[in-house]
Amino acid sequence: MDIKKIFEEDYINKEIKVQGWIKNHRKQAHFGFIDMFDGTCFNTLQIVYDDENKNFDEISKLKIGSAIEVKGTLVKSLNPKQEFELKLEEFTLEGSCDDDYPLQAKGRPTREFLREIAYLRPRTNLFQAVFRIRSLAAYAIHNYFNQNNYVYVHTPLITANDGEGAGQVFQVTTLDLDKIAQNKIEKIDYTKDFFGKKVGLAVTGQLEGETYALAYKRIYTFGPTFRAENSNTKTHASEFWMIEPEMAFCDLEGDMDVMEDMLKYIVKYVLDNAKTELEFLNNFVEKGLIEKLERLVNSNFTRIDHKDVITILKEANVNWEFPPEYGQDIAKEHEKYITEYFNGPVFIKNWPKDIKAFYMKLNEDGETVAAVDLEVPGAGELMGGSQREESYDKLYNRMKELNISTNEMDWYLNLRRFGGCKHAGFGMGFERLLIYLTGVDNIRDVIPYPRTPGNCDF
Amino acid sequence: MDIKKIFEEDYINKEIKVQGWIKNHRKQAHFGFIDMFDGTCFNTLQIVYDDENKNFDEISKLKIGSAIEVKGTLVKSLNPKQEFELKLEEFTLEGSCDDDYPLQAKGRPTREFLREIAYLRPRTNLFQAVFRIRSLAAYAIHNYFNQNNYVYVHTPLITANDGEGAGQVFQVTTLDLDKIAQNKIEKIDYTKDFFGKKVGLAVTGQLEGETYALAYKRIYTFGPTFRAENSNTKTHASEFWMIEPEMAFCDLEGDMDVMEDMLKYIVKYVLDNAKTELEFLNNFVEKGLIEKLERLVNSNFTRIDHKDVITILKEANVNWEFPPEYGQDIAKEHEKYITEYFNGPVFIKNWPKDIKAFYMKLNEDGETVAAVDLEVPGAGELMGGSQREESYDKLYNRMKELNISTNEMDWYLNLRRFGGCKHAGFGMGFERLLIYLTGVDNIRDVIPYPRTPGNCDF
Repeated sequence: MDIKKIFEEDYINKEIKVQGWIKNHRKQAHFGFIDMFDGTCFNTLQIVYDDENKNFDEISKLKIGSAIEVKGTLVKSLNPKQEFELKLEEFTLEGSCDDDYPLQAKGRPTREFLREIAYLRPRTNLFQAVFRIRSLAAYAIHNYFNQNNYVYVHTPLITANDGEGAGQVFQVTTLDLDKIAQNKIEKIDYTKDFFGKKVGLAVTGQLEGETYALAYKRIYTFGPTFRAENSNTKTHASEFWMIEPEMAFCDLEGDMDVMEDMLKYIVKYVLDNAKTELEFLNNFVEKGLIEKLERLVNSNFTRIDHKDVITILKEANVNWEFPPEYGQDIAKEHEKYITEYFNGPVFIKNWPKDIKAFYMKLNEDGETVAAVDLEVPGAGELMGGSQREESYDKLYNRMKELNISTNEMDWYLNLRRFGGCKHAGFGMGFERLLIYLTGVDNIRDVIPYPRTPGNCDF
Repeated sequence: MDIKKIFEEDYINKEIKVQGWIKNHRKQAHFGFIDMFDGTCFNTLQIVYDDENKNFDEISKLKIGSAIEVKGTLVKSLNPKQEFELKLEEFTLEGSCDDDYPLQAKGRPTREFLREIAYLRPRTNLFQAVFRIRSLAAYAIHNYFNQNNYVYVHTPLITANDGEGAGQVFQVTTLDLDKIAQNKIEKIDYTKDFFGKKVGLAVTGQLEGETYALAYKRIYTFGPTFRAENSNTKTHASEFWMIEPEMAFCDLEGDMDVMEDMLKYIVKYVLDNAKTELEFLNNFVEKGLIEKLERLVNSNFTRIDHKDVITILKEANVNWEFPPEYGQDIAKEHEKYITEYFNGPVFIKNWPKDIKAFYMKLNEDGETVAAVDLEVPGAGELMGGSQREESYDKLYNRMKELNISTNEMDWYLNLRRFGGCKHAGFGMGFERLLIYLTGVDNIRDVIPYPRTPGNCDF
């Protein structure tokens, strides 16, 4: 039986059988307590035994980390801290645990150390909470889009187009590099590579996503994405998951509606379904986490033009490290100020075209594009989106200006010639969201097996 | 408004506004009919107009493929084939369509041709059905595991371990290959590569999945997987999605319980939620498709040992191309025979150890492992699973026998030292399932942008 069930239904005075791992074991001369978890919920189950158990000696020797099966009766606990405990009647040692098990009850291993034993860390309270929330948030995302009749699209990960500047690309090959190194030649012949051309890992699925939005009206992607940037920050990973919805017959205002609605849905879902985990994180990782999330669900999201944000920043009585300027990007300090100024999440929209991507819809002013970034208090930029340029000519000219191959991307351009209607979409990095949801501040701690420059273990 | 809604609720005599693409357009001198789809459901909506519309000439000229917005009143149709139609009152051309649009109403493009225009093919009936079913089946999978309290785990795609023989690996690198080619050296120095070592794309997430199963009791993965085999068959792709559940405190019998239960759930979900799509596929792609799926949901899955299968095959009065033999793998012709023999799905279990993977649990006979393949009528092998070897010593010895590095895989071995209980899991190729669910026989036609040797377009 799952321990989760014991906390949800009434099993007092009933005979039950549970399996799990020993988190803690306190033994006295004539009795003992075992805290057992089985991963089906955050709670541990207390198991009590005494010297009337025929295997008392054997039980007393059980080590932390061991896997056991226990039969017994669930009884009311005398300890006011817990409602019930399991009185052990029979037990089986399913898997013993060696003494060098790194997760002993005493001592609190650092997160850095836990990354080195990433295969064991989900057994700790912190990571048990984090990775359950990761799972719940992923489910919330699928739920949200399914309820709203979006089609889930798996865009390709191996691709010959490089996402047009979205980031640096990992190359994928089956060529024998040692052989290449041994023979001096001028240039690699990619017709001999697996796909007959040079290919790499996708930095976005948006362009392919657009083609499906123009067939299903509303689609989303949710899959891995790769960036080969050599940056070692707390918020960058080389491999991460991204959600990229795309809606036909939708403009920038409609785009923001979806961004806001989706985010509130996910946060509410996690609040409702990860109560124990969030309480733990609220107590030990980020004080005020639950209140922060509840406020988001009930907040109004401001919508304001980039130029008006610059005006506010310029008028602010602040000694900026990076002075704000019209036509320029904004810095982290500005993001922070602006969410505090509006006391809630802020959509900054209509950005200068020169600092945004080629596919964004040019506004009538000829200077800005219909792009939007969502700034969230305590998270910074959580999502970015735009209405896409639906005019073939404008898109073609912009690609020429930026030296983007109109040949290789002919399908993307053609989409504008074949019923290419107004459409919009956005992208959200899943791990950014998880950092926000859990209060854990390093992206390496919200990915089961993180990949960063120089790190590819397990 | 979504066209889907019009088919679900009563809008007769109501004013509505819809947006979508023109699938067909039949025009007469004084009136015309437009079939419009918007991708929210499989059905098209018939729009009628006549020369009392002030834009009659303009409407008459609307081309197939164009995106339009139409306002009008939904009225009962005189055509007995359909319940209602939309009487056009106002319209807007959202996006016109050039004459070289390849999806004209006349002519039936081949599937090979449609692969070349993969960015447009979801607008055809066939692919509209296939890729909605892909989305629904994916959702059913997440639903199934969420309802049963599995944790969804994202295992890494870039990895330094090669899955131990599960398949050939794509290499991932940021080294400049042209530069390497120009300087003659003996061996590549991978300390200079992005991750400081040689890495490739994952062929399985199982090994990492096991580590999470031993923390959450039940987990599943659902993500992309890569194989660099140079094989051009109808069932092989270089990039595909896979589901890999893993359960702690679970043996081979429990494993089969989950395989059967999950498959029935997914098939039933698709039967319930893709009625129109399945009817179309049943009529035009695979006669008897719906009956096949319904039978599966109601069938009993046989469980039989590999050696008993061989006995049945040997005793069969069949002139085999590949004569069956104890200790050997079975061929496609055998799979087919055995599902016909039992008139339903068959779990073939307890396979000869030498033809199965190193991590499978050795049975007491010392000759077979606790592995299972599920054979499904009309699909062949749909899933494969096993109980995993939980004994450190047996696993260690098997790895040594097979020359698998026990150093690099120490974490996988250690899992057996630290509360390493009995556990089992399986893998299902998502596209194999989709071929079965849709009746489409080529894997290239169930993946939005398929990657196969020599093919990496879009």
